[in-house]
Amino acid sequence: MSELVKVAVDAMGGDNAPEEIVKGAVEAVKESSKVKIYLVGIEDRIKDELKKYNYPSQQVEIVNAAEVIETAEPPVMAIRKKKDSSIVKALQLVKEGTCDAYISAGSTGATLVGGQVIVGRLNGVERPPLAPLIPTEKGAALLIDCGANVDARSSHLVQFAKMGSVYMESIMGIKNPKVAIVNIGAEEDKGNALVKETFPLLRNCPDINFIGSIEARDIPAGYADVIVCEAFVGNVILKLYEGVGGTLIKKVKAGMMTSLRSKIGALLVKPALKETLKTFDLEQYGGAPLLGLKGLVVKTHGSSKAVEIKNSVLQCITFSEQKINDKIKEKITLENE
Amino acid sequence: MSELVKVAVDAMGGDNAPEEIVKGAVEAVKESSKVKIYLVGIEDRIKDELKKYNYPSQQVEIVNAAEVIETAEPPVMAIRKKKDSSIVKALQLVKEGTCDAYISAGSTGATLVGGQVIVGRLNGVERPPLAPLIPTEKGAALLIDCGANVDARSSHLVQFAKMGSVYMESIMGIKNPKVAIVNIGAEEDKGNALVKETFPLLRNCPDINFIGSIEARDIPAGYADVIVCEAFVGNVILKLYEGVGGTLIKKVKAGMMTSLRSKIGALLVKPALKETLKTFDLEQYGGAPLLGLKGLVVKTHGSSKAVEIKNSVLQCITFSEQKINDKIKEKITLENE
Repeated sequence: MSELVKVAVDAMGGDNAPEEIVKGAVEAVKESSKVKIYLVGIEDRIKDELKKYNYPSQQVEIVNAAEVIETAEPPVMAIRKKKDSSIVKALQLVKEGTCDAYISAGSTGATLVGGQVIVGRLNGVERPPLAPLIPTEKGAALLIDCGANVDARSSHLVQFAKMGSVYMESIMGIKNPKVAIVNIGAEEDKGNALVKETFPLLRNCPDINFIGSIEARDIPAGYADVIVCEAFVGNVILKLYEGVGGTLIKKVKAGMMTSLRSKIGALLVKPALKETLKTFDLEQYGGAPLLGLKGLVVKTHGSSKAVEIKNSVLQCITFSEQKINDKIKEKITLENE
Repeated sequence: MSELVKVAVDAMGGDNAPEEIVKGAVEAVKESSKVKIYLVGIEDRIKDELKKYNYPSQQVEIVNAAEVIETAEPPVMAIRKKKDSSIVKALQLVKEGTCDAYISAGSTGATLVGGQVIVGRLNGVERPPLAPLIPTEKGAALLIDCGANVDARSSHLVQFAKMGSVYMESIMGIKNPKVAIVNIGAEEDKGNALVKETFPLLRNCPDINFIGSIEARDIPAGYADVIVCEAFVGNVILKLYEGVGGTLIKKVKAGMMTSLRSKIGALLVKPALKETLKTFDLEQYGGAPLLGLKGLVVKTHGSSKAVEIKNSVLQCITFSEQKINDKIKEKITLENE
């Protein structure tokens, strides 16, 4: 049993908890014999859900936690006060070494704060970035940081670039991933003070494949694999992706319903269209890791269904097998030239 | 003749100059008798284009300018050195009072720099923001600032909110336009240092309808009429709008071409879809004004066709008739409570 990857899953977090969370955990252990899942939350409710399934029960353990941190609660206070919450208890399993990884669809703020305060940073990591995968025409790119550290400094961004490179190479299998910094023009003299300060530092980084600036327009086209930016900009990018995507799909659907002719056409294109658009769905990529902590902390969408939880668990296995944290430590301690 | 609105048009700027620029100018004077257009650029080339059309010739005048500023040129240097360029000469027509407004599809940088240096700011205006209209589900919203002033201060953002409100009310006819600040969460305590500092200033502004924070996700849904942000974030929003939109439309088209069944369907939905998507096209809204200058300076897309130039000219007429600059001066000098 000792070589199993152990994952603490917040069974109470997200819009579809505990039903979809427990279902996703069950699907994960059915798919992989390499993982043991600790379902953290209100014991009776988790048991009720688990009863619905047949699964290798030695791979699932329940850890009771009586409290739940709600999304709207101020995160610092919630982490401090709700010691018996599923988020705090699940993070503690990682801290004490019982688990290798943590997954939650619950409060982003509480996961960010708790990840830093309870699990703690790897030696040398200044700020842990939240790094979701976003869809592009060429596959997926890592957006780093998308919301963990507003008002970051240039040295933080350099670390983001390094950690992001390790992630894309080891988890996504992209050899020598292209790193770009979000900018408002392609030239080196463009940008705000932070970007101008960070650009030469990235260019002089010996151990990343820095390709320069990327304009937001070129992100969906897939020009880069690791998209470096500070958290405010990253959050705007992530959310506008959702917003513009949602509105356009709504427009396309409405456009197809405007005449009898187009309604008939809609029936014919629907299956093919659905398949194509699935490749541009943010949620298919599973959770976003908070990189640079002593253990893996993963935040999935609040609306997570079983499939996202399952995929996130499988991601944790790869993360652990690939020894990402050892690679991050090694890269972070490498000084810039 | 004295009550005509006079517009200096850079005939040499943009990907389709001078053909589409001259065509747009001709269409504008054919549509409105209230305007006189000064076509600025290489005289012979403008004459060759004008020959193609019948139009009220007393409403069009050519101003010769031998040089052209290219998009790739560093703007400050270009404005300083190319005194005989179409951009510099057209801006000078506004400065000296011959023209009320300026339109260019050429170098954005040169227009921004030249607008400030040659035309100059209105008294009291700290920074002139570039403010394009962007499509939303409910019509259009003004994105202010989308690229003129990186690393802006909170006092600048307050002025952007005021100028944007005047514009949306007077030009777009939106009574009491809703103003929101781009943020990474809905609560007042969210955000980076700039947003946290600006939020209470906007809330205490007596003469705008401030509704609080807007997350990027909600911009395309049309939650606000005036979207306030600093230029780096605004530029990312504008360009990601284009990028995600372009990629998704490409995906939709590709999805429709995957099978015979869907190809037939595509033929049937195409006309209706085209009509619907037109309402979500950035370019339909014409040029973006650089607000707060002594005269109206408008930047249109580099890819502008005649229709965008024509619409921009018509916009200049409304701008002048509505005495936008008087209203801006009045609002800017009103102190916050």
